[in-house]
Amino acid sequence: MMRDFDAAQLALPGIRGLQPYQAGKPIEELERELGVTDIVKLASNENPLGVSPKVAQALQEKIAGLARYPDANGFYLKSALAEKYGVQPEQITLGNGSNDVLELLARTYVSAENEVIFAQHAFVVYPLVTKAIGATPIAVPAKDYGHDLDAMLAAVTERTRMIFIANPNNPTGTFLTADALYGFLQQVPSHVLVVLDEAYYEYVEAAERAPSIEWIAEFPNLVVSRTFSKAYGLAGLRAGYAITHPAVADLMNRIRQPFNMNELALTAAMAALADEDFLQRSVQVNCEGMAQLVAFCEQQGLNYIPSHGNFLTIEVGDDAEGLYQKLLHKGVIVRPVTGYELPRHLRVSIGLRSENQAFIDAMVAIANEA
Amino acid sequence: MMRDFDAAQLALPGIRGLQPYQAGKPIEELERELGVTDIVKLASNENPLGVSPKVAQALQEKIAGLARYPDANGFYLKSALAEKYGVQPEQITLGNGSNDVLELLARTYVSAENEVIFAQHAFVVYPLVTKAIGATPIAVPAKDYGHDLDAMLAAVTERTRMIFIANPNNPTGTFLTADALYGFLQQVPSHVLVVLDEAYYEYVEAAERAPSIEWIAEFPNLVVSRTFSKAYGLAGLRAGYAITHPAVADLMNRIRQPFNMNELALTAAMAALADEDFLQRSVQVNCEGMAQLVAFCEQQGLNYIPSHGNFLTIEVGDDAEGLYQKLLHKGVIVRPVTGYELPRHLRVSIGLRSENQAFIDAMVAIANEA
Repeated sequence: MMRDFDAAQLALPGIRGLQPYQAGKPIEELERELGVTDIVKLASNENPLGVSPKVAQALQEKIAGLARYPDANGFYLKSALAEKYGVQPEQITLGNGSNDVLELLARTYVSAENEVIFAQHAFVVYPLVTKAIGATPIAVPAKDYGHDLDAMLAAVTERTRMIFIANPNNPTGTFLTADALYGFLQQVPSHVLVVLDEAYYEYVEAAERAPSIEWIAEFPNLVVSRTFSKAYGLAGLRAGYAITHPAVADLMNRIRQPFNMNELALTAAMAALADEDFLQRSVQVNCEGMAQLVAFCEQQGLNYIPSHGNFLTIEVGDDAEGLYQKLLHKGVIVRPVTGYELPRHLRVSIGLRSENQAFIDAMVAIANEA
Repeated sequence: MMRDFDAAQLALPGIRGLQPYQAGKPIEELERELGVTDIVKLASNENPLGVSPKVAQALQEKIAGLARYPDANGFYLKSALAEKYGVQPEQITLGNGSNDVLELLARTYVSAENEVIFAQHAFVVYPLVTKAIGATPIAVPAKDYGHDLDAMLAAVTERTRMIFIANPNNPTGTFLTADALYGFLQQVPSHVLVVLDEAYYEYVEAAERAPSIEWIAEFPNLVVSRTFSKAYGLAGLRAGYAITHPAVADLMNRIRQPFNMNELALTAAMAALADEDFLQRSVQVNCEGMAQLVAFCEQQGLNYIPSHGNFLTIEVGDDAEGLYQKLLHKGVIVRPVTGYELPRHLRVSIGLRSENQAFIDAMVAIANEA
């Protein structure tokens, strides 16, 4: 006989109301469900070049040793990142993807009594980690699909403990200039941590990039997070990091799962960091693919949100969900963004030229069927 | 000019008092620090056989695809586990090591107002995850180094939300019989989740193993966690799981990081699960190595805690820390357990025959130097 047990009633109230994160549809799932083959996935802002050959080589050399635990302190990867960015290893917190460091930050600093500010249309992990703690999420309405920094400042109260800013933002691709961010940081009170999520940093043109890591010396309440999942091509391995004031890293480290980044992720991230050539090719392919998709939109008269990331969010009309399904049946996976309050848009990741063309061909074919 | 900012004062009170987890000393760290070579690591209960050759093969085949995100739902691994254990995939939560599922459970069910019960000398992750939430840890004094189930029951209050039980326990290797556990579960009130951490399950003799997963049908407040880090040899990859009532899994899934188990961990776990032969050899090597270390202790008149795991915790006297350091200088890494209130013991993981012998030789040499 099963005893009385109410699994939901016993759980924390904030968790009962949560919806789990919806990932992009995996290629294998589409194969299972619809029997479609020759699938093009442009749904998760992954690197279409795959992994660097140098990463693949480094991984193979590590496979035999996998029965050993990873280095819990990530000594070599932190040293390499510290050297690259001119910071101390003690300022770096490694994560199982940047998702992990975003969550660690919230769990270190945010209690159920606090408010957390982020922008409308911003990355869904911000409200998720906020609600999981039972804190109050404050979504500030977007301006031109992007962050309205003045309105976000105005939303700060004594209960505010954290502000998430994605730059470029996912899923809109909008971008804040260094000047705008610097002015914002000057006005944020020091009881509020500003988490600047730069997952798409490497795709931003060098001249436009903010010197965000340098700013930490001036603004100790600033956190910069980055990832190896995008331009470095390691989404499958989960490798991200935060650069912070050392005292922030020390506190995050107390609740970090000791082996949060696994051995192969550590190895691959080291190798990826050293392969500048692969990184540059990735950015170049993205630049060309972005031009290809933008040209298609212009030609078709489709509105799109100008993007600084490795994706383009296109306004496709009233039946974005229906178009998404039609694209699936043609073997093209893109991303619905209704959950981001963008019900008329689809987000298309930049793929190889041939993959972008497959999306374009499918769009044209669907239009002709209508 | 750096602005005023008190990183610690802003953090949650429970986190300010935490000490980070102390991992076993990595081989590379000992090389860096002391210049010692030919190192034997018997410090982290890792599988001395390494990874199964079938796992290595499966990993190599996946390397090219690593720029794609992992399957957020772990469809294939959950299906394989469900079939092996006769449960539904909806009862399984995958984790970045079982550490991850233990933390998810606490964060789903335990608030700052709750108490969490575990045994003295039990795995340090239990108090860590409890304190990170700000909940009250209740460490119940051990009986013969193991769990005192009657005392743990007596410690249950209305504020108790979770009881962690490690069986076998790390770092003592003590073991609770199926009868003792079943009787305990019958008496635990249903507002308390019992998390049965069976990380070392595969090392327990088949006749002694509790049918813990079957019990979930009767006790929906029972959670069973297992890992691929020990007998399956995947410590470096981070793969663990919890089997629960489906409603518990549903709630855990709402705060699980969507890609918490990476692609290679998913792949390796699938391959490891299918390689029964490697698992049996691992258990056999452990059985022989345990006999080797026990014989050494008996011969030397050293007390040890009889162990059902892949390690032996040996009473070495008043200067366990000094002996640990001397062993390091001879290239043998074992584990001090002072943090577990066992200041007179060292925990020695079972290695290959030659590795165990290296530990024995070092112990004899140190004794002769004294």
